[in-house]
Amino acid sequence: MFPPSIQKLIDSFAKLPGVGKKTAQHYAYFLLRSHRTIARDLSDALRSIEQGITLCRQCQMLCDGALCGTCMNPKRDQRTICVVEQIFDLEAIEKSKEYTGVYHVLHGRISPLDKIAPEDLKIKELIDRVKKLSGEIEIILATNPSNEGEATAIYIQKLLAPFNLKITRIATGIPVGADLEYADEVTLGRAIKGRQKYD
Amino acid sequence: MFPPSIQKLIDSFAKLPGVGKKTAQHYAYFLLRSHRTIARDLSDALRSIEQGITLCRQCQMLCDGALCGTCMNPKRDQRTICVVEQIFDLEAIEKSKEYTGVYHVLHGRISPLDKIAPEDLKIKELIDRVKKLSGEIEIILATNPSNEGEATAIYIQKLLAPFNLKITRIATGIPVGADLEYADEVTLGRAIKGRQKYD
Repeated sequence: MFPPSIQKLIDSFAKLPGVGKKTAQHYAYFLLRSHRTIARDLSDALRSIEQGITLCRQCQMLCDGALCGTCMNPKRDQRTICVVEQIFDLEAIEKSKEYTGVYHVLHGRISPLDKIAPEDLKIKELIDRVKKLSGEIEIILATNPSNEGEATAIYIQKLLAPFNLKITRIATGIPVGADLEYADEVTLGRAIKGRQKYD
Repeated sequence: MFPPSIQKLIDSFAKLPGVGKKTAQHYAYFLLRSHRTIARDLSDALRSIEQGITLCRQCQMLCDGALCGTCMNPKRDQRTICVVEQIFDLEAIEKSKEYTGVYHVLHGRISPLDKIAPEDLKIKELIDRVKKLSGEIEIILATNPSNEGEATAIYIQKLLAPFNLKITRIATGIPVGADLEYADEVTLGRAIKGRQKYD
């Protein structure tokens, strides 16, 4: 029923994750009714990622040059590397504004069920990176506190053990604002085990 | 944190209806991880709607020529015009495969609260279209059975009254597969009022 060009647009939108035919139709219809600059901007933005996006040579974050903004920033502590699973984890940590070091993005976690092996992640790049550094280095393993995230953290920790590094793991415990009564026992156990002295 | 080109893509996606920043990020990340043809196809599809899409001169459906496929189809009954609010209503009726006439898309319904006046809809185009026709014509008013849809139907019905036409309204009643017990009283009242004789 729709003209072929609109059908093609709907089909293209429907390829996005979590977008069904109805949602794709509504996106298309919205763009047809809106000012044409919105469609053009999106089209241009899509074109531009096709050309210039690579991974930062150092931290593996998305980047449009050889090195990303964080790695090139002289104000960031290049001797503290926070290892995260995904680029969005990096974004989340940045938002907390607590962290002044740099990152290393693994692009996944080890997961035999999903057939993701250590070789599929940017672990080799992390080892190569660490080898080049000297002095006091801290590696913060900030993979998710899930089974797979923990396994990935332990795997990396073992690989890094031969180097003279400080290796830490982000704290797990009760989230701020949550209720102890409703916390699961594993989290509660971790929170007690990881208790800290008042400074 | 993201390179400007990716930030621009995220911002563009976030302009789509119902898409927040998180969803926009996930769309962008999906495209970055997928085969680049997906991003390119979407970009091309967006470009193509910018160029060739107009409204059908006759029925106001989206179209990439002067007349849409339905209006040009000699097998469709050009003397039965189904008036719908939106292009998606047209799609829905087409899917039922019950209808062999043509359409007229109003592109909205009269809604004083949303500041949509009759002049904002394709009502004038409908009147002009009807004026050109002769013989036995049926106009099916298939606006939604909501307050605004009903008001729009009544408004059009009054405008068309001077012409020698058969004007009908789609039936409201209990949907197929629904339970009488849980139907609202207005629908139930309409279903009884609109009861039909067995042929």
